[in-house]
Amino acid sequence: MSSSRETPSLGAALDPRSIAVIGASENPNKIGGRPLLYLSRFGYRGSVHPINPNRAEVQGLKSVPRLADLDASPDLAIIAVPGEAAVAALDECAAVGVKVAVMMASGFGETAGGKAQERRMVERARARGLRIVGPNSQGLANFGSGAVASFSTMFIEAAPADGPVGIVSQSGAMSVVPYGLLRGRGIGVRHAHATGNDADVTVCELAAEVAQDPGLKLLLLYLESIPDPHHLARAAATARERGVAVVALKSGRTPAGQAAALSHTGALANEDRVVDAFLEQHGIWRARDTGDLVAAAELYLKGWRPDGRRFVAISNSGATCVLAADAASQVGMPLEPLGPETQQALRRILPSFAATANPVDITAALLTNSGLFGQILPVIAADACADAFLIGLPVAGAGYDVPAFARDAAAFADGTGKPVVVSAPQPGVAAAFRAQGLPVFESEGAAVRALHQLIAHHELVARAAGRPVPEPAGRPVPEPAGGREGTHRLLNEAESLARLAASGVPVVPHRLCRTAEEAVAALAALGGPVAVKGCSGEVAHKSELGLVHLGLSDAGAVARAFAACRDGLAGAGAAFDGVVVARMARGRRELMVGAHRDPSFGPVVVIGDGGRYVEALPDTRILLPPFGPGEVRAALASLRVAPILAGVRGEPPVALEAFVACACAVGRLMTEPGAGIASLDLNPVLVGTHEAECLALDAVVVLREGAA
Amino acid sequence: MSSSRETPSLGAALDPRSIAVIGASENPNKIGGRPLLYLSRFGYRGSVHPINPNRAEVQGLKSVPRLADLDASPDLAIIAVPGEAAVAALDECAAVGVKVAVMMASGFGETAGGKAQERRMVERARARGLRIVGPNSQGLANFGSGAVASFSTMFIEAAPADGPVGIVSQSGAMSVVPYGLLRGRGIGVRHAHATGNDADVTVCELAAEVAQDPGLKLLLLYLESIPDPHHLARAAATARERGVAVVALKSGRTPAGQAAALSHTGALANEDRVVDAFLEQHGIWRARDTGDLVAAAELYLKGWRPDGRRFVAISNSGATCVLAADAASQVGMPLEPLGPETQQALRRILPSFAATANPVDITAALLTNSGLFGQILPVIAADACADAFLIGLPVAGAGYDVPAFARDAAAFADGTGKPVVVSAPQPGVAAAFRAQGLPVFESEGAAVRALHQLIAHHELVARAAGRPVPEPAGRPVPEPAGGREGTHRLLNEAESLARLAASGVPVVPHRLCRTAEEAVAALAALGGPVAVKGCSGEVAHKSELGLVHLGLSDAGAVARAFAACRDGLAGAGAAFDGVVVARMARGRRELMVGAHRDPSFGPVVVIGDGGRYVEALPDTRILLPPFGPGEVRAALASLRVAPILAGVRGEPPVALEAFVACACAVGRLMTEPGAGIASLDLNPVLVGTHEAECLALDAVVVLREGAA
Repeated sequence: MSSSRETPSLGAALDPRSIAVIGASENPNKIGGRPLLYLSRFGYRGSVHPINPNRAEVQGLKSVPRLADLDASPDLAIIAVPGEAAVAALDECAAVGVKVAVMMASGFGETAGGKAQERRMVERARARGLRIVGPNSQGLANFGSGAVASFSTMFIEAAPADGPVGIVSQSGAMSVVPYGLLRGRGIGVRHAHATGNDADVTVCELAAEVAQDPGLKLLLLYLESIPDPHHLARAAATARERGVAVVALKSGRTPAGQAAALSHTGALANEDRVVDAFLEQHGIWRARDTGDLVAAAELYLKGWRPDGRRFVAISNSGATCVLAADAASQVGMPLEPLGPETQQALRRILPSFAATANPVDITAALLTNSGLFGQILPVIAADACADAFLIGLPVAGAGYDVPAFARDAAAFADGTGKPVVVSAPQPGVAAAFRAQGLPVFESEGAAVRALHQLIAHHELVARAAGRPVPEPAGRPVPEPAGGREGTHRLLNEAESLARLAASGVPVVPHRLCRTAEEAVAALAALGGPVAVKGCSGEVAHKSELGLVHLGLSDAGAVARAFAACRDGLAGAGAAFDGVVVARMARGRRELMVGAHRDPSFGPVVVIGDGGRYVEALPDTRILLPPFGPGEVRAALASLRVAPILAGVRGEPPVALEAFVACACAVGRLMTEPGAGIASLDLNPVLVGTHEAECLALDAVVVLREGAA
Repeated sequence: MSSSRETPSLGAALDPRSIAVIGASENPNKIGGRPLLYLSRFGYRGSVHPINPNRAEVQGLKSVPRLADLDASPDLAIIAVPGEAAVAALDECAAVGVKVAVMMASGFGETAGGKAQERRMVERARARGLRIVGPNSQGLANFGSGAVASFSTMFIEAAPADGPVGIVSQSGAMSVVPYGLLRGRGIGVRHAHATGNDADVTVCELAAEVAQDPGLKLLLLYLESIPDPHHLARAAATARERGVAVVALKSGRTPAGQAAALSHTGALANEDRVVDAFLEQHGIWRARDTGDLVAAAELYLKGWRPDGRRFVAISNSGATCVLAADAASQVGMPLEPLGPETQQALRRILPSFAATANPVDITAALLTNSGLFGQILPVIAADACADAFLIGLPVAGAGYDVPAFARDAAAFADGTGKPVVVSAPQPGVAAAFRAQGLPVFESEGAAVRALHQLIAHHELVARAAGRPVPEPAGRPVPEPAGGREGTHRLLNEAESLARLAASGVPVVPHRLCRTAEEAVAALAALGGPVAVKGCSGEVAHKSELGLVHLGLSDAGAVARAFAACRDGLAGAGAAFDGVVVARMARGRRELMVGAHRDPSFGPVVVIGDGGRYVEALPDTRILLPPFGPGEVRAALASLRVAPILAGVRGEPPVALEAFVACACAVGRLMTEPGAGIASLDLNPVLVGTHEAECLALDAVVVLREGAA
């Protein structure tokens, strides 16, 4: 993959001075015709050059037979011809010095046979300084400059308007579906780009370019694969600096979805939990669905900067109060009672049976007195107990002064400067509030979820401050058949423990013993009881082979365990490196630390509840280096076993700082250039009431091929 | 509470022959005016009698000053006057023989002082055979008969049309919000009833009445409290018999929501997990939000009877394929590949780069050949590998023959008889498919979730077949201050174990010993090692008081443990009933069985993972008696620890049939009329590789006051 540091900027993709259309068509409904229609219709001010060997003029513009016939090479060329003709056109673009080619043809990297051809195309283009968007791309659309190099029908269906939203997507459909939904809500969209197979320019690299647009407030991404996290991290860093919110829909979460993505854009699967961790780390909100991607758009565009999570609901319906309270509680937004003065003032306005604590239930009395709404809002605004509000009007219409409600609500939002969402299922009521610039949702739940997204996303961005942009890792190479193990080397337990101890991990006192006599001597030296475990660089899982003997206190038992381990390994046909004799340690809980290398994201550290059932009863969190003690503590606090670690039923809390330090040591080890560790597994790491009880009892380290 | 067996049927509420309006108003925007407007506008064919002491005519109808002035007593009276006047009107209704009064006034049971007054009102009415809907009710609306005794503005905002949907709600707003959403989608609604405070007629009782309407296909409920589960069970049983789907939104899930519900309709809180279990047991789908309540309405109304969960997605967008595959996988709907003949036939139609396995990606080739859609559907219809379909058209419009797509899709759905959902975010495309009678959603996720709801709900209803309707439990009485414990009696461990052993629960071999000598003798009799535990009817939690001594093998240790238990109980000021000496048992996993009585739902059995951390790391399921072994097995299989019970890492599976029998025995014990058990807690129940290893190691039984 080319990084932007070695290649020309993608400015020419977003804002080209001139555009050629190879395969230009007179018919604006054809792939080669529609971009010409759009370039003329949407105000593109650069020059446009149809390329068509059979016509002197296309859609009213002078046409030439070949790219080389132009006086000057265009910044951007749309390749709207299919198959081999597209490949030839690409080479022609490279030859004449085009900066960016948008390649619309399908049938390359997303098919079984097309991957290699696609790779060769990119290599040839790169050698001549040509960037490729696609193939299998629907095209680029910039409504700020009018450079709409796209064949999507959507821009006919929903008329564009420039605005503060950018969309960058691998998929053509998903570059315009959010566009259509936002345009339907009256929101302007500047960018709607589809990168297709991401053979050269990826969605992440283009997103990093779009994030620099000073007109942007919200950046929406659709991704089927993230082969280049460094570009995405750069996009996120730029966005954070400029106050742009980034929301990403990453599909291919499940094996079925990953299989579908492979045949769609040739996307390689990412481990979904690693994607979650990466997005969170960089302050990107992860949407779960198309609707989710655009649900909170109005809230972001209001520019609200929420200060906290305290939530107040106001409605003319008790049911809305109950549903909003449930929804807010479920996403961790507390409902604190309004202050006593506030409540007293509300009681002076509202009927005696109205609720005034929080939620505030105006009751059906609003039907007979529309003025109640406008009277209570300033009272609530004066209360400092709230950070965010929901106004719910499940029913209004005849008999209610809805336009006044909407004006009063807008004044309330402006006055407090705090986020306000409206739930109003009736279209007419919703329209009145929208006309006043307030975000409106069909249900209490949807409104609360959008509010929570805004607040939780702000918290995420604050935590991501200063997060470094990782180095490019290079395009991941698919693993050879047979998996990684063939090229990696497993260290035996003694070597593994030694390696980790050298990196600052506290390990159980132990000896590697080659003979039964050494083992018996180790028992005496360590003090009993001890564990005796068969040691071999050819066995990763010992329990299943009967290689683990626990709680041995006398010499005879140790000698017998030594023999059993030696015989067990011989029986399994595995090398016998000796036995590890380790002191039996006591503690309160078994935790674990694991680490591996993700082909895209690099080092991944996993911490969590440990022991025998770590796979069967997973309770772990992912940490992506570099990370510090605060992140490890937060991860531990979010585990299912967190209450146990904090101490329940009279137990003292577990001392965790030594474990935190151990996890940090593993994080550093995995990023050390010379360490050469492919993966490691510390399980269990015993923890207890004292920091000194934190001990790794077992370890498996796998070295990368060629590492010492 | 009155049950329908002792009181007149609620037929007069739904289909009254005559209606009086007490507090009738000339102004149709007033509470006493709007029902008159609706009764004349929506075709009510019975007689209508305005009651107003100040006018001879109201809205063109002859008015009389008092109810008693009418020639005959009306079936139904709307009480549209407030406060004390409403109470007086109610007594007047009772006096003249009105069958049902709809009481709209607020300020009764939902306020601190109004509960007692409300109860007295109901008692007086009940004595005269008068049923009350309300107070605090927005009214009843039956668009089948035109009996619209409601003051909701919604029926002006969204014009009614009779149809196969019934809505019964405590809340006025929530009786009409689903109405408005469904009417906006063109779906007819027959019933939209609000019961308010449920002082007499509850939402559940009215739902049971509505469920008998032969025109109904879908029944939607909004509940803030379920004080009378037997009525809800009856509604569900009637609905199951008649093929009516029941979907319920039960709010007050969280403490904040419960507090809001208390001040809204005076609703008492239900334990939310018990509500979940009850609804599931009776085949009622639980909606999480207003949107959720109506999301799958079109699918229910199509009358589809899904045969299974196998899912096929078809789209012109690869992204839709990926998103649909993810969404289906996440709700447990597998994507099996289409048969080889099907795929071969699809390949003959679609371009070479199209995906044909499942999802089927038509690709952007649909833009140049709209016929592809209609050509592939019959091929897919002929494949037996699918139970349900999604058709996704994220982008269409100019250049696409959308009306033909919609016709072809409808023919496909009709031909297969299988559920088909459409995802189409563009309003125009959605309208074309809706016009052909297909359910359309804005996103793949929403479409898949609705499809899953239809299928999973059908599975639920099938499992609920034959579920008995429980007996009425009587209106729950609030617990006296100080909780239940003051009126209940704790059995000590020996008594508890004996009680359970007598009911068929396998308990650990043990002796109750009053002296140290008896304890030592018990060690010899049971065989060591043993546990020695202090036994007292005044202590429920022994560990915290140092009353548990494990693994004792010699007489001295047992004697010392005896003394420690005696001293520990004395130190805690608790009666010393002796010590329990129990054989130390071995097993693989600690499970638990608990049971208590819910004030509304009666006996509740809880089974799950046991041991010390059962509260801190909850992994339990609720079972409502009566239940059988199949339900216990299903509950165990859904636990987080299920893989451990099934056996992982080479372990044999845990033998569970003795535990299943134990849980069933507890279920029977809790329903035995004479057993008098308030609650019980068996924790741990040890389970192992052999059924004989299933033993309750500890037990706490609490008897109800007055029970032996």
